[in-house]
Amino acid sequence: MLPPLLDAIIDRALAEDLGSGDVTSEAVVGSETRAVARAVAKQPLVSAGAEVFARVFYRVDAGVRVERLVEDGVSVAAGAVLWVAEGRARTLLAAERTALNFAQRLCGIATLTARFVAAIPAGSSLRIVDTRKTTPGLRALERAAVRAGGGRNHRDNLGTAILIKDNHVALAGGIAPAIAQARSRATHVTRVEVEVDTLAQLDEALAAGAEVVLLDNFTNPEVEEAVRRTRGRALVEVSGGVTLERIPELARLGADIVSVGALTHSARAADISLQIEPLA
Amino acid sequence: MLPPLLDAIIDRALAEDLGSGDVTSEAVVGSETRAVARAVAKQPLVSAGAEVFARVFYRVDAGVRVERLVEDGVSVAAGAVLWVAEGRARTLLAAERTALNFAQRLCGIATLTARFVAAIPAGSSLRIVDTRKTTPGLRALERAAVRAGGGRNHRDNLGTAILIKDNHVALAGGIAPAIAQARSRATHVTRVEVEVDTLAQLDEALAAGAEVVLLDNFTNPEVEEAVRRTRGRALVEVSGGVTLERIPELARLGADIVSVGALTHSARAADISLQIEPLA
Amino acid sequence: MLPPLLDAIIDRALAEDLGSGDVTSEAVVGSETRAVARAVAKQPLVSAGAEVFARVFYRVDAGVRVERLVEDGVSVAAGAVLWVAEGRARTLLAAERTALNFAQRLCGIATLTARFVAAIPAGSSLRIVDTRKTTPGLRALERAAVRAGGGRNHRDNLGTAILIKDNHVALAGGIAPAIAQARSRATHVTRVEVEVDTLAQLDEALAAGAEVVLLDNFTNPEVEEAVRRTRGRALVEVSGGVTLERIPELARLGADIVSVGALTHSARAADISLQIEPLA
Amino acid sequence: MLPPLLDAIIDRALAEDLGSGDVTSEAVVGSETRAVARAVAKQPLVSAGAEVFARVFYRVDAGVRVERLVEDGVSVAAGAVLWVAEGRARTLLAAERTALNFAQRLCGIATLTARFVAAIPAGSSLRIVDTRKTTPGLRALERAAVRAGGGRNHRDNLGTAILIKDNHVALAGGIAPAIAQARSRATHVTRVEVEVDTLAQLDEALAAGAEVVLLDNFTNPEVEEAVRRTRGRALVEVSGGVTLERIPELARLGADIVSVGALTHSARAADISLQIEPLA
Amino acid sequence: MLPPLLDAIIDRALAEDLGSGDVTSEAVVGSETRAVARAVAKQPLVSAGAEVFARVFYRVDAGVRVERLVEDGVSVAAGAVLWVAEGRARTLLAAERTALNFAQRLCGIATLTARFVAAIPAGSSLRIVDTRKTTPGLRALERAAVRAGGGRNHRDNLGTAILIKDNHVALAGGIAPAIAQARSRATHVTRVEVEVDTLAQLDEALAAGAEVVLLDNFTNPEVEEAVRRTRGRALVEVSGGVTLERIPELARLGADIVSVGALTHSARAADISLQIEPLA
Amino acid sequence: MLPPLLDAIIDRALAEDLGSGDVTSEAVVGSETRAVARAVAKQPLVSAGAEVFARVFYRVDAGVRVERLVEDGVSVAAGAVLWVAEGRARTLLAAERTALNFAQRLCGIATLTARFVAAIPAGSSLRIVDTRKTTPGLRALERAAVRAGGGRNHRDNLGTAILIKDNHVALAGGIAPAIAQARSRATHVTRVEVEVDTLAQLDEALAAGAEVVLLDNFTNPEVEEAVRRTRGRALVEVSGGVTLERIPELARLGADIVSVGALTHSARAADISLQIEPLA
Repeated sequence: MLPPLLDAIIDRALAEDLGSGDVTSEAVVGSETRAVARAVAKQPLVSAGAEVFARVFYRVDAGVRVERLVEDGVSVAAGAVLWVAEGRARTLLAAERTALNFAQRLCGIATLTARFVAAIPAGSSLRIVDTRKTTPGLRALERAAVRAGGGRNHRDNLGTAILIKDNHVALAGGIAPAIAQARSRATHVTRVEVEVDTLAQLDEALAAGAEVVLLDNFTNPEVEEAVRRTRGRALVEVSGGVTLERIPELARLGADIVSVGALTHSARAADISLQIEPLA
Repeated sequence: MLPPLLDAIIDRALAEDLGSGDVTSEAVVGSETRAVARAVAKQPLVSAGAEVFARVFYRVDAGVRVERLVEDGVSVAAGAVLWVAEGRARTLLAAERTALNFAQRLCGIATLTARFVAAIPAGSSLRIVDTRKTTPGLRALERAAVRAGGGRNHRDNLGTAILIKDNHVALAGGIAPAIAQARSRATHVTRVEVEVDTLAQLDEALAAGAEVVLLDNFTNPEVEEAVRRTRGRALVEVSGGVTLERIPELARLGADIVSVGALTHSARAADISLQIEPLA
Repeated sequence: MLPPLLDAIIDRALAEDLGSGDVTSEAVVGSETRAVARAVAKQPLVSAGAEVFARVFYRVDAGVRVERLVEDGVSVAAGAVLWVAEGRARTLLAAERTALNFAQRLCGIATLTARFVAAIPAGSSLRIVDTRKTTPGLRALERAAVRAGGGRNHRDNLGTAILIKDNHVALAGGIAPAIAQARSRATHVTRVEVEVDTLAQLDEALAAGAEVVLLDNFTNPEVEEAVRRTRGRALVEVSGGVTLERIPELARLGADIVSVGALTHSARAADISLQIEPLA
Repeated sequence: MLPPLLDAIIDRALAEDLGSGDVTSEAVVGSETRAVARAVAKQPLVSAGAEVFARVFYRVDAGVRVERLVEDGVSVAAGAVLWVAEGRARTLLAAERTALNFAQRLCGIATLTARFVAAIPAGSSLRIVDTRKTTPGLRALERAAVRAGGGRNHRDNLGTAILIKDNHVALAGGIAPAIAQARSRATHVTRVEVEVDTLAQLDEALAAGAEVVLLDNFTNPEVEEAVRRTRGRALVEVSGGVTLERIPELARLGADIVSVGALTHSARAADISLQIEPLA
Repeated sequence: MLPPLLDAIIDRALAEDLGSGDVTSEAVVGSETRAVARAVAKQPLVSAGAEVFARVFYRVDAGVRVERLVEDGVSVAAGAVLWVAEGRARTLLAAERTALNFAQRLCGIATLTARFVAAIPAGSSLRIVDTRKTTPGLRALERAAVRAGGGRNHRDNLGTAILIKDNHVALAGGIAPAIAQARSRATHVTRVEVEVDTLAQLDEALAAGAEVVLLDNFTNPEVEEAVRRTRGRALVEVSGGVTLERIPELARLGADIVSVGALTHSARAADISLQIEPLA
Repeated sequence: MLPPLLDAIIDRALAEDLGSGDVTSEAVVGSETRAVARAVAKQPLVSAGAEVFARVFYRVDAGVRVERLVEDGVSVAAGAVLWVAEGRARTLLAAERTALNFAQRLCGIATLTARFVAAIPAGSSLRIVDTRKTTPGLRALERAAVRAGGGRNHRDNLGTAILIKDNHVALAGGIAPAIAQARSRATHVTRVEVEVDTLAQLDEALAAGAEVVLLDNFTNPEVEEAVRRTRGRALVEVSGGVTLERIPELARLGADIVSVGALTHSARAADISLQIEPLA
């Protein structure tokens, strides 16, 4: 992520917590006391957010040094030390909560994504992708966390790809006109994706030249039939509250993509603690 | 929340999703077509975030009208219509995802908080409070969602209250000097809170004049003994991965406050959908 | 364009010119004097930028009323009145230069684009598209101006589509591996475009599955041969200092797209003046 | 230009192009691959924008080193290498377009300005100055580019100098009252300039104490007569679509200043390319 | 002042005080209770800041109505009601302190300025002007307050006028070369001002064509001699800790301008209170 | 103060003064000339603002080196050199005024505060505290300056502590209900403070459990009686135009706290000059 954009996100988070300073540490800790802080995984997790973790400390105090023992995308056991910060004790205490708030969320997303990815049978080319159901203000970071977990990204935003949904179809007067109109506005480097609710709609979308079809809330047998009808003419994306348990079967049925909103909107924060130790 | 500050948060979220427009809707939907959008609870939930939901639409298009059928803090059944937006169809489609991303998170937090609050036995004055483990950039909104769920807030940030933790004690050379030093910097309208890991530390903190004691990872019997020793000289806050199941017993034992990080860092998004219908 | 994002651009422009007020008008013009200002085309042009023109006045003074006599994308003769603002004379004088600076640039782009589009022979499906060679800070506005002129947009930015250039090929060790690697990172809604400098590279790109090929600095005979070899397997984009004069021939040869950097980086400002008249 | 203000302009430009990363380069180029990038003039030009070119790279990646072979204001032949950046290949590819978009515009302005300046006969003290017809958001950069080309700046904005135009005269009830009122509000370090459309107005302005007169759309004979009547009592500025061809004659006639809006609103982008070469 | 720029200043001030809400009023005052708030002068003062006072309330709550009973620049007795705000009681309480912090400072500046202006003998054309010694972030507001008090402004900033000080002279190698060099960079609408410490320097500056001379820390007899030597060839500005008591004599001696840093850096806040009364 | 937040304040101040450069210095001073600048106290003062003074120079030019000879909170005699900056002469001249505008205000506040603190008799625990009557935009800096002068801070803003004023009491229907309602919304780490205008109100507040009482405009005998009635049940804060002369008596009477708005709203700027000397 572009450093000034990342810093802008971090600065806002720091302002929430440190806008009026850290009264306790300023009172209790000597200004020159130095310490080391180790970010320790308290559960098995997939690492993500190393860059943002480090820059939180730098923005509070450019004199902190952060070492990354674990790169993003690596799976670690409970007890693993992920990253180590060394600098003034006041800085480490002041930045602790903000750094962890970022890291715990991003590792949580990477870890959940990795569980979905691990459920894909060997040999399958099924992809797990995210959605636009991200935390307001943190989309770029959360998309990177999904990649760290082995997932892939869906379109970044409403301006950069075409996804025709049921409302669009209704307002355009049918799937075929909707596709035609969308093509007239989209760039020539964008594929046209169409959401379908039934097999009949699928047929219509394929006939009209959809390059990706999104099967919304299809059962497994419906997915099977949809893949059969598509015959490789379009990529098949399955969506709608898909659970971990369905992944192997969806892969077996030949879906190309499963998109999972829960990766970003409902991942539990990973349990990470910061162990701070004064330096002599 | 102060309107310009709320708008700043919303604008950043909108920029993520709409910075390059909404190519699909611009192509497919007539610029003057009007529609109505109903936010429907797909699960039982406690409502929160009405203001931010409404302002998302206003920021996209000042001509949208949003009606709030349910105020924040109200518990509704699945199927309830929370809020209704009416305006240009393009606007509703463009703002939909951002508005829901805010609303689902905030309702999720309010709903989880309400479950903790509901677990408090009648007659108990136990309070459920949040922590600083909030989503970077969304603290004020999430704190309001906790209140909507019936919870209470802990200190807003590091600058506005004293909470002496184990690291502070170690660096200050003991609990008593830490309290004295903290007092010397804090405002006179702030109470001093001290985190303790053992009953021995509790005794020390009380002797040194702590006004609030935070029992970190105490078992129920330890909490009971801590309350006994405190004898009303300080407020007793229990913290450390407290589950819903422990709430009734902690209330019975006489704890004053239970703080729960999961309220904000691990609440699942509430399931809310936006049903859009064209207007004739 | 999202109103808060548009306003942010306008506010920065206004701050450049009006950050210290308008000393002359404040001294010379009565604060309650009202006037009407007509934006008049001093040359034939294609209109663009109506929204930004109007909002410049609104940001200076919410009491101004702006009427749009000509919508974006309309071709007008010299002498046509495009837009009319009415309000306090001080406001009109203060906002005049900033409003015109936007409007003249955007109409200039639309007008130049329309000349390229007009050069396409009837019946051809050739598209004129822009590039990323836009004015820093004004990309979204300039892309809209290209559309107003009848052109189409290329990818919005580096994050939302794949365009493999010669440097990428060199660094990836060939066209085929470059395409494979790009696919592994891109979203599934993005086509892969490859820039080629020779017919041999074209063959390689097509063999590796390129969905769009960009012919860089090809002569007309080379374009003809490239179209022949492509046989509809990919879209053919021609680029590299293409002049107006080549458009008909490129259309005849079967190119799908011509991208023209000059649309945004070298369009002359359209000549528009603001005629201000006091109201009795 | 003040570094934080320059960085703010650059960051906004980068956000337009890199806000979602550079998908192609991230996929295709190794994160540690290093390269060198040479900015080469593809046409004779006057250099400008070295500082902004360099800082674009720094903002993307503080590890890039940029060397300036040519300082601003120097005239170079086609083929000259202006500036050289060395660093991670991904950074160079990501920053390339933004850096060039700035540099091409600024060199274009400097080059056009230099042509006007070169048209001034030896021994003349005529100055070529810019106007407020600058690109919204880039005024300070464009004014510096004019200076790099040997031109001079007019007033920076509406708050810092007095320029009484025809509308002001009409609203103030005449030139003399307009000057008197303007003086009453202006600082004592500002000269009063008055725009005149006729020789009669010129006489009036001079009689009322104008220190600079702007001759708007005067023919050469009218300019000659105006200079004669002014007799050194005021500086004489000529304006209104002045072409390069008129400069020598205007100088000979004794005009002090010629202001040219086209310097900033209609300069063609200078042709500069970035040649990137991997480092072993 | 441009509304978006004024709002940006106000929003930052509000964020300082209301970023976490107004806990007391939210708890104690009903959300629909309405009230009226009267800003009352507790001392004789010259009014300033009406616009910023009103907009503070609007930014908190667009539903507040503010009436201005006294325009800026009017002198009022103790007890006068300046402005009246009516709206929700919570809003009035929340905005009170921020609105008063602005108003008290600006009225304080206007009041002090008016005392200096009142000390000018009838018939004198002496002007009292401010300096760049303004509060960081509030320059435009404070300059307007000086004007409200009957004072005039000096140059706005370092970019818009020439003021050659002793350090410049030393570094340029004398007054004459400094003036020549400054002229080569300044716009042609700017006068050149030179600070002098002695009568000898004054002679030098006048000989070199200074248009304004700043007499720094001159005694009254030195001012008298300086005015005599200047003989109208330049404006004479007196500066350096000038007290109210010296104004009549400086006017008598023929100084044109006295600049007073204390107007903005050391004015006492005017005593204004906000009297809030619930509405039935 | 958090560096990015401090830089944001500084950048805005610099933009006011240097947004268009420093025309005089750019014209007159060689770009490579180096100099040293000494900030000299021209009066006895208590130092404050060292960090902001230094960073002003860094933001203009990262190559400046600033040495702090005097730390914040130290009392110095007239003539003392506080801080020394060394770097390019142009930078020092450009940053001078902004750096001094901050430093003079902050040292002024620290110096005035120190006079109040010095008036406290030996052995008294009376504290001098600030109020929310700070300069808009500079609250955090001014609060730090109060601490540098030996004062203490009151609550930071309206969101972080409870202070029930007369209006709240009126709107809540009495002191007791107001306290109860405030408690229901406040965090458990906040004390409840109540402003009282009479001894009767004091009794009521104490009976209702106020932890801090603010005696508004009490005479010394009233303060004496209030302290007697309070008997240590609450902290006693005295407020309302308290002058330096009353401090010893208020300390003797047993007040715990005196809050003084004038510390921040009416401190005179300390007299500090910057002596710049070229380096060979």
